[in-house]
Amino acid sequence: MSVAAGACPEIVQAVTGAAGGQDLPYGADPFTAGARARFAEIFERDVDVLPVSTGSAANALSLAALTPPWGSVLCHRDSHINTDECGAPEFFTNGAKLVALPGDDARIDPDRLRAAATRKAGDVHSVQPSVLSITQATETGALYTPDEIRALAGIAKDAGLRVHMDGARFANAVTTLGCTPAELTWQAGVDVLSFGATKNGGMTADAIVVFDHALTPELSFRAKRAGQLTSKMRFQSAQLDAYLTDGLWLRNAAHANAMAARLGNGLKALPGADLLHAVEANILFCRLPRPVIDHLLAEGFAFYHDRWEPGVCRFVTSFSTTGHDVDTLLEAVRRLTT
Amino acid sequence: MSVAAGACPEIVQAVTGAAGGQDLPYGADPFTAGARARFAEIFERDVDVLPVSTGSAANALSLAALTPPWGSVLCHRDSHINTDECGAPEFFTNGAKLVALPGDDARIDPDRLRAAATRKAGDVHSVQPSVLSITQATETGALYTPDEIRALAGIAKDAGLRVHMDGARFANAVTTLGCTPAELTWQAGVDVLSFGATKNGGMTADAIVVFDHALTPELSFRAKRAGQLTSKMRFQSAQLDAYLTDGLWLRNAAHANAMAARLGNGLKALPGADLLHAVEANILFCRLPRPVIDHLLAEGFAFYHDRWEPGVCRFVTSFSTTGHDVDTLLEAVRRLTT
Amino acid sequence: MSVAAGACPEIVQAVTGAAGGQDLPYGADPFTAGARARFAEIFERDVDVLPVSTGSAANALSLAALTPPWGSVLCHRDSHINTDECGAPEFFTNGAKLVALPGDDARIDPDRLRAAATRKAGDVHSVQPSVLSITQATETGALYTPDEIRALAGIAKDAGLRVHMDGARFANAVTTLGCTPAELTWQAGVDVLSFGATKNGGMTADAIVVFDHALTPELSFRAKRAGQLTSKMRFQSAQLDAYLTDGLWLRNAAHANAMAARLGNGLKALPGADLLHAVEANILFCRLPRPVIDHLLAEGFAFYHDRWEPGVCRFVTSFSTTGHDVDTLLEAVRRLTT
Amino acid sequence: MSVAAGACPEIVQAVTGAAGGQDLPYGADPFTAGARARFAEIFERDVDVLPVSTGSAANALSLAALTPPWGSVLCHRDSHINTDECGAPEFFTNGAKLVALPGDDARIDPDRLRAAATRKAGDVHSVQPSVLSITQATETGALYTPDEIRALAGIAKDAGLRVHMDGARFANAVTTLGCTPAELTWQAGVDVLSFGATKNGGMTADAIVVFDHALTPELSFRAKRAGQLTSKMRFQSAQLDAYLTDGLWLRNAAHANAMAARLGNGLKALPGADLLHAVEANILFCRLPRPVIDHLLAEGFAFYHDRWEPGVCRFVTSFSTTGHDVDTLLEAVRRLTT
Repeated sequence: MSVAAGACPEIVQAVTGAAGGQDLPYGADPFTAGARARFAEIFERDVDVLPVSTGSAANALSLAALTPPWGSVLCHRDSHINTDECGAPEFFTNGAKLVALPGDDARIDPDRLRAAATRKAGDVHSVQPSVLSITQATETGALYTPDEIRALAGIAKDAGLRVHMDGARFANAVTTLGCTPAELTWQAGVDVLSFGATKNGGMTADAIVVFDHALTPELSFRAKRAGQLTSKMRFQSAQLDAYLTDGLWLRNAAHANAMAARLGNGLKALPGADLLHAVEANILFCRLPRPVIDHLLAEGFAFYHDRWEPGVCRFVTSFSTTGHDVDTLLEAVRRLTT
Repeated sequence: MSVAAGACPEIVQAVTGAAGGQDLPYGADPFTAGARARFAEIFERDVDVLPVSTGSAANALSLAALTPPWGSVLCHRDSHINTDECGAPEFFTNGAKLVALPGDDARIDPDRLRAAATRKAGDVHSVQPSVLSITQATETGALYTPDEIRALAGIAKDAGLRVHMDGARFANAVTTLGCTPAELTWQAGVDVLSFGATKNGGMTADAIVVFDHALTPELSFRAKRAGQLTSKMRFQSAQLDAYLTDGLWLRNAAHANAMAARLGNGLKALPGADLLHAVEANILFCRLPRPVIDHLLAEGFAFYHDRWEPGVCRFVTSFSTTGHDVDTLLEAVRRLTT
Repeated sequence: MSVAAGACPEIVQAVTGAAGGQDLPYGADPFTAGARARFAEIFERDVDVLPVSTGSAANALSLAALTPPWGSVLCHRDSHINTDECGAPEFFTNGAKLVALPGDDARIDPDRLRAAATRKAGDVHSVQPSVLSITQATETGALYTPDEIRALAGIAKDAGLRVHMDGARFANAVTTLGCTPAELTWQAGVDVLSFGATKNGGMTADAIVVFDHALTPELSFRAKRAGQLTSKMRFQSAQLDAYLTDGLWLRNAAHANAMAARLGNGLKALPGADLLHAVEANILFCRLPRPVIDHLLAEGFAFYHDRWEPGVCRFVTSFSTTGHDVDTLLEAVRRLTT
Repeated sequence: MSVAAGACPEIVQAVTGAAGGQDLPYGADPFTAGARARFAEIFERDVDVLPVSTGSAANALSLAALTPPWGSVLCHRDSHINTDECGAPEFFTNGAKLVALPGDDARIDPDRLRAAATRKAGDVHSVQPSVLSITQATETGALYTPDEIRALAGIAKDAGLRVHMDGARFANAVTTLGCTPAELTWQAGVDVLSFGATKNGGMTADAIVVFDHALTPELSFRAKRAGQLTSKMRFQSAQLDAYLTDGLWLRNAAHANAMAARLGNGLKALPGADLLHAVEANILFCRLPRPVIDHLLAEGFAFYHDRWEPGVCRFVTSFSTTGHDVDTLLEAVRRLTT
């Protein structure tokens, strides 16, 4: 329930293990080669990988490679790229426009996408629909099934758009859905994936995973130019490598998801708490009475609140959340609401 | 002499120590507060600090806060910002122009700066001189004394320009010059410093040090928007904190400088090697015969060569370079040139 | 009713009159001085004036001077800047975000503005509300009264925002409202005005009118850098001068408004035509049956249709529209709908 | 010798003739179709044409379509794009870098071009050479022969670069060289031409002439987004049409060139005047003693001076310069220098 967990031991150990030697810089090191091989394994095909320092950098760089400046990015109105990145996509794309679409649980409504994907296409007075960006899991913790992704991506492709996935919580989605990373991405039409590790036990590394190799040279120049090409890339790659080794990423996600489910189930049983969505990943939104929120904060619980609607709180679990943490929070809410 | 060393043990340990707990994200953690306090100590005044993932990000963000898009950045023609960042300054500043000035040892000639600082000032047809950027130590490993910095900064300030310092090798400069960080920066007129840690034992963190607090809000928005605001900032801050604790940064630099001096002295004694500059920091340039370069590479020595002029090699030492490493290289050159 | 009228004789004559002599370039000519004096007269105060080649350039340059790249522009969702400029504001502002607000008749709802103006202010994760942009007359031809502008601008100013007005049809608004240009702009809180002339008898010139002189140097550099500073500015200035001389601009607008009213009144009387808004300026929207639209087009009438909703047509009148033109159109609609 | 002449009668008349009717906007008018046909004629092939309001807009838009943001534009260090457009190319290209090359008479040295065209190609740390931009006639009034253009363009093409020509004084070059527009452009390897009309009798219109049709859609979106797509394009097109009709553009240029030659020959005969270049177009540079410059200005002669070097004056002739104008200036210089 902490606002930001630390890093999991396997990743810490990997970073420590990368510290000693001397290696070629800028990705020409064995750790980076190793991480690339892991990505190829889990995605069941050759992929290009660019480590980056934040999810915002992953998203904004990806979008910049997929839309011209006069293009538009079709996304959910509550998507992170639209609401929480201080205009990073607009900056990296040199002024492309984010077109905000509605849909329940922060999932894009296919009919609205269909209308938007061809809107004013070819009209020189209007930005041109160029990319679909979907978030998996969504900002409310909801999931798209492979079929749903394929359907959205199909609408996009039919209109000539490229497809980006913001996978800040990709591991949580894979775990719950029980399908392969390939099924959720390139097999469903995704061209570029922002692959999150930081929120799931990582330290200072996320990655851009490129399924369309033609985009990689451009992305490489853009990443350098954005200050995202690190000389000691091995320290990012070692994290990513460890993250993908022996299923660590899925174990961490499964644990976080289970803790969120435990919290959700507990809150559902409390009359004063109003759970806003089904809990499918490691994030849940809950409406609580004002005094309850105030008391929880006073007691030292840390969580975002009132950023969406008054009285709405967001709880996020992680690899390090314990059953005891969950129960302590539930007990506090129970005490304060009854 | 490796192209990229690892990280020094104190910094690895600090990162490990930051991994366990749970903290507020985006810099509201005690590690970041601690790092800020350290920076205030070594600079003998209150400063604002923004951790970033690369020196290019530090430079480009700093410049973006110091020049409008229609401004120009006066810098040495061999400066990193002008030649090695793939246009990052142009990207972050939204198209400001880098005006390349000459000068020996990659140090800006004051007379040329004076002429450039007022050139076409007020002329709407021309970009407007807005920032002076100096590199300490320079790209050839030369140093500016505090007096020299004060003189350059004075020329800039008289013309209404702001002053940026690229301090990717700042520790090396402080060590050799034997003066205080304050004397080399804000006391000499520097407004913003790109503070390097990565090249001197760090892992994944450099920093922007802001001496003019009025710039900090803008820098904060720009950093977020550039994908440089990390949720788990503690992992960067812990590195910076350890780096500045108990003089680690200066010890690492002193060692690296000593190893470079040893290498320089050794090379000077070899008739086939032509040292291009006095060795003042941890970097040296040397002209070697083509077959010597080829043999060194074949024997596994790793260094940049032929990027500046044919036959010119760059050797860089670090906290982890040993006397044995230096002597092994010297021995190889001796063997190959005699 | 034509999609684009020509230029009115007084303006043509002024351009012809400017062609003969030799003058200083880039605005240092007597025509430009004359136009500036006219603007000062009609706005009853000193103003700065930058002639530009299009309304899009006027809007985008103005906004760029009023918002940082990490800012947002609060505007109506149907505003020209949001829907019809292919992202010009995003380009000129280096990636600021347009926040689209609702409201009837393309007029911004004050309550929605109030909420948006402070939304996430100071939150580094979000673009910062920086400018209010209002269109007078609006894209549907509706008007804001001086009181309404003052109220909206007041909300903006209270939240620290600047105020821009898109006055592509400013003359039409002044004419109908019967108030002074000053009352509609700087006296109501407007900082910068995009002043349209092209749609009202002009040829190749619109203008930015700056009420806050502190913005002018920045605007001048931005205009040059955007390719909007013309060497033979006199040809734009002569148009603007003639436009403002002896009330030509208001006469043209009054005529165009009268023709729109005549058309509106006529359409109201026809059962098959559904007028969508009150007619306050020189533009009206009307829903017509599909076969009627098709026949009108086939008969050579030129108008936009189906860009907003299916069956919705836009008719625009101008200084050159005659009563006969209006009656001919009305007669055709009558014939086709009855 | 005036700093800016007016417009020639044929062009004024064409504008007047375009003012009366009603036409489709944004280039779907017969004047624009007519101008396109004229361009096709004089270039002996199908071309796309985008009217723009300034030469800076023509240059910057063209370059933006020819280089990615991480590219570089190889140009002469004295070229207008590098020194006189306040960073317009950097703005429109979203931060590409201008690489300034030397060469006599503002003509690019082929050897320096050859070295620059492949410099750091493929190196992710460096901007990538992407476009060659040459100015015809150059900023000093010198000319490239078709063979010279073909040679420079060949070097560029061999390295994978595109070729842009800044033809602000294109007519003057065609006239002097006595070769066809085709020979000077697409037949020699030019992809996009900034075609100047304003300096040679035009009023408010220059044009981008596109020889590679694949670039046109992108240019169209960029032009709209830059505020360069005019609703009443006919007023620009009518100017361009008249300019190209019956050889007007070449007659105007021939006259201006002849006047420059007369001035040059006169100055050469005066001991106090030092002509800096051979006079091949309508522009000449001359070093004059300080008191002479001061007296000429005091007597009302208008010309740029001291922008390049102290004591250097630039004289420009036009379609409207008379032999009497030239002789009056010569007489004044003679009187003041002897």
